[in-house]
Amino acid sequence: MSDTPDTFAELTSKLATVAKSFHGRGWLLGTSGNLSAVVAREPLRLAMSPSGIDKGELTADQLLSIDENARIVSDHNGKPSDESLLHIRIVKDRNAGAVLHTHSVWNTILSDLYAPEGGVTIEGYEMLKGLQGVPTHEHSEWLPIIENSQDMPALAEVVGRTLNEHKAAHGFLLRRHGLYSWGETLAQAKRHIEILEFLLEAMGRTSLIKRQGVKYGRSNDPQ
Amino acid sequence: MSDTPDTFAELTSKLATVAKSFHGRGWLLGTSGNLSAVVAREPLRLAMSPSGIDKGELTADQLLSIDENARIVSDHNGKPSDESLLHIRIVKDRNAGAVLHTHSVWNTILSDLYAPEGGVTIEGYEMLKGLQGVPTHEHSEWLPIIENSQDMPALAEVVGRTLNEHKAAHGFLLRRHGLYSWGETLAQAKRHIEILEFLLEAMGRTSLIKRQGVKYGRSNDPQ
Amino acid sequence: MSDTPDTFAELTSKLATVAKSFHGRGWLLGTSGNLSAVVAREPLRLAMSPSGIDKGELTADQLLSIDENARIVSDHNGKPSDESLLHIRIVKDRNAGAVLHTHSVWNTILSDLYAPEGGVTIEGYEMLKGLQGVPTHEHSEWLPIIENSQDMPALAEVVGRTLNEHKAAHGFLLRRHGLYSWGETLAQAKRHIEILEFLLEAMGRTSLIKRQGVKYGRSNDPQ
Amino acid sequence: MSDTPDTFAELTSKLATVAKSFHGRGWLLGTSGNLSAVVAREPLRLAMSPSGIDKGELTADQLLSIDENARIVSDHNGKPSDESLLHIRIVKDRNAGAVLHTHSVWNTILSDLYAPEGGVTIEGYEMLKGLQGVPTHEHSEWLPIIENSQDMPALAEVVGRTLNEHKAAHGFLLRRHGLYSWGETLAQAKRHIEILEFLLEAMGRTSLIKRQGVKYGRSNDPQ
Repeated sequence: MSDTPDTFAELTSKLATVAKSFHGRGWLLGTSGNLSAVVAREPLRLAMSPSGIDKGELTADQLLSIDENARIVSDHNGKPSDESLLHIRIVKDRNAGAVLHTHSVWNTILSDLYAPEGGVTIEGYEMLKGLQGVPTHEHSEWLPIIENSQDMPALAEVVGRTLNEHKAAHGFLLRRHGLYSWGETLAQAKRHIEILEFLLEAMGRTSLIKRQGVKYGRSNDPQ
Repeated sequence: MSDTPDTFAELTSKLATVAKSFHGRGWLLGTSGNLSAVVAREPLRLAMSPSGIDKGELTADQLLSIDENARIVSDHNGKPSDESLLHIRIVKDRNAGAVLHTHSVWNTILSDLYAPEGGVTIEGYEMLKGLQGVPTHEHSEWLPIIENSQDMPALAEVVGRTLNEHKAAHGFLLRRHGLYSWGETLAQAKRHIEILEFLLEAMGRTSLIKRQGVKYGRSNDPQ
Repeated sequence: MSDTPDTFAELTSKLATVAKSFHGRGWLLGTSGNLSAVVAREPLRLAMSPSGIDKGELTADQLLSIDENARIVSDHNGKPSDESLLHIRIVKDRNAGAVLHTHSVWNTILSDLYAPEGGVTIEGYEMLKGLQGVPTHEHSEWLPIIENSQDMPALAEVVGRTLNEHKAAHGFLLRRHGLYSWGETLAQAKRHIEILEFLLEAMGRTSLIKRQGVKYGRSNDPQ
Repeated sequence: MSDTPDTFAELTSKLATVAKSFHGRGWLLGTSGNLSAVVAREPLRLAMSPSGIDKGELTADQLLSIDENARIVSDHNGKPSDESLLHIRIVKDRNAGAVLHTHSVWNTILSDLYAPEGGVTIEGYEMLKGLQGVPTHEHSEWLPIIENSQDMPALAEVVGRTLNEHKAAHGFLLRRHGLYSWGETLAQAKRHIEILEFLLEAMGRTSLIKRQGVKYGRSNDPQ
């Protein structure tokens, strides 16, 4: 895989389309969130969303090309997202082809609600089958929750450790911050985000009903 | 009705439009859900959505033509949805012209909440009149809930039995999985999905309010 | 005001635009709801949405021209909405130029929740100022609730009586059915629907929080 | 900075785009809310949204040019928003380049819920970093709540006093009315609105869950 202009142009165009779609759903409001895709592996080149841009209006030519130290290698004037180091860590540790990070209302709520347990267990939903390598709804997905921090190198270390401890995880939450997921391709990463956002919303809304004493037949219900 | 290219092209174009609309509403996130329409009856030919495709980007030419055993009869390379056998069963048992299957947050929640009762009763809503053959809001719709399974031939059998037991049902829920509905035409199937999704959301939200002890004047309120 | 083709064409085009917008918000799902606008007063001619059409795909040329008895006066083959008699009654009693009827999840819930009281009081919201003739948020709007019925002539009588009893009302609810509002113009009717839908959602969501014992400083809070 | 036609045309075009986006999210329903941007400082010229216009259909040429007394200085026939005096006060006191005012369901609810405390504290969310000058999620944002009034000169005085008392605030709520925020540029003002709307929704939904006795690990949780 080489860093040809065509490939970079295609990826950035697709990243802009995903950004617009997620912004429309309210998952990237106020310039929050960020998106990346691998353009080349050796040496590593990532197409990365710039810092401080409205994701509903992100254009392909605003995406930056960065190296494995999050330095810009193209002649752009932009500033890559502060969280580029997290993207790079995920790309390396999971061999991911794309990384997406969303701030939704429900992922924010659940990232705090379940923080004392260190993560959220999601199980028994058909929707889980959309996660790569999950063949059945009888799957238990552990979504780790990591304390938020502004120290990016330190946070990248914690992310790396968490990825290592939970090798089967398809994503993680930063507390009161947001969701990270990834995939072999951008399409797969988008699929993973949509699935995890859906399930977090379903669990959040279910907890409202269940906590009022509604009987449930399953033993593996959340909470 | 013959399998002419025009008819197939029209149906697949309409299926792609429905997919885009439902994906926009969050009912087909993460490649979940599937859609089909009958192209010919003798022998049976179904236009069926492929497995693993983003429904917000589904194009007409990605729809597959399958036979009554869910085998591809066109020269496509795609893989028909795993749940094709359920679509075929519904088409045969209900003489349906189209079958739609959605994963919404509210249908997921209610499919689990009401599972111990075996189904959900929806009654007294004007919206019910939009279901084919229902002349008044004073109608009681029983939406059966079927346990989820990955064994598609076995699940198709249970679906067939359920359809036979509940001949008036306009849809059913798979537990923690999603909603199936159908119609004589694709337009009717779309109408049925929109109505059932609306009513499940209304009932889910009502249950939040009612369970907190609000008095109600009707005896036929849900729950 | 004469029934010129231009005027009819403009009105039907605007009605189709409103229908598409409201369907997008989930207020006209599954062919529910209906829309009308006055084309001429003497004799009365209404542009009326047809029965059984998907409002997200309603086109201007599908709108029907009907007289004061809800009979089609154009050469269309369509069937006017069953609820045309209600529209005609409102047009006559309120001298309205347009009537809109929506089925939203929140108006459905509140139409049932407040039915024992015969209506909903909405007061103290700035949003109320958008209702025609309301100069301040210190306004108390009574939204009457009428029992649903399939006997349209009888229901039209009850609607007429209700409009007469509550001359200041800008709309009413049919129980477990939906919201009616109107305006001198279509733009005003659209504004009234958006305002009432907003306020019903705000009140419905507020009731969830308040019923859990949160303290409030106002004495005129809903419920 | 001079009042050149180009600049005015660009600003009004951008204001119309923001209005359409926010109307789509349900934050400017029923002609509610208003938007402005500074065209020139000496003398002050504001591009201001007109009163009574559907924000989903607002066009650039409908924006009015007003002076520091909210008088129209262009040859428009429109009427500037009643709340122009509030915009002018904010522009002067905060040296803002744009002011946006939204009516969302969640800002309406929280503006009433927290009114007895005089404001809402929002803290510990990553999303806060999107507010200008906030470097970390470990930030405590105080969003003052002002009693609603129809006396605009008096309300402008209270707004001025509030801005003076809370110099770090990025916005304020009018009780049962809506949210005001602003920025050096229109893009920054839009970002601030999206962030504050997101956080108010997250806090409103969290309060539903927390009030049912879910344990939390943080001491600075809302309420």
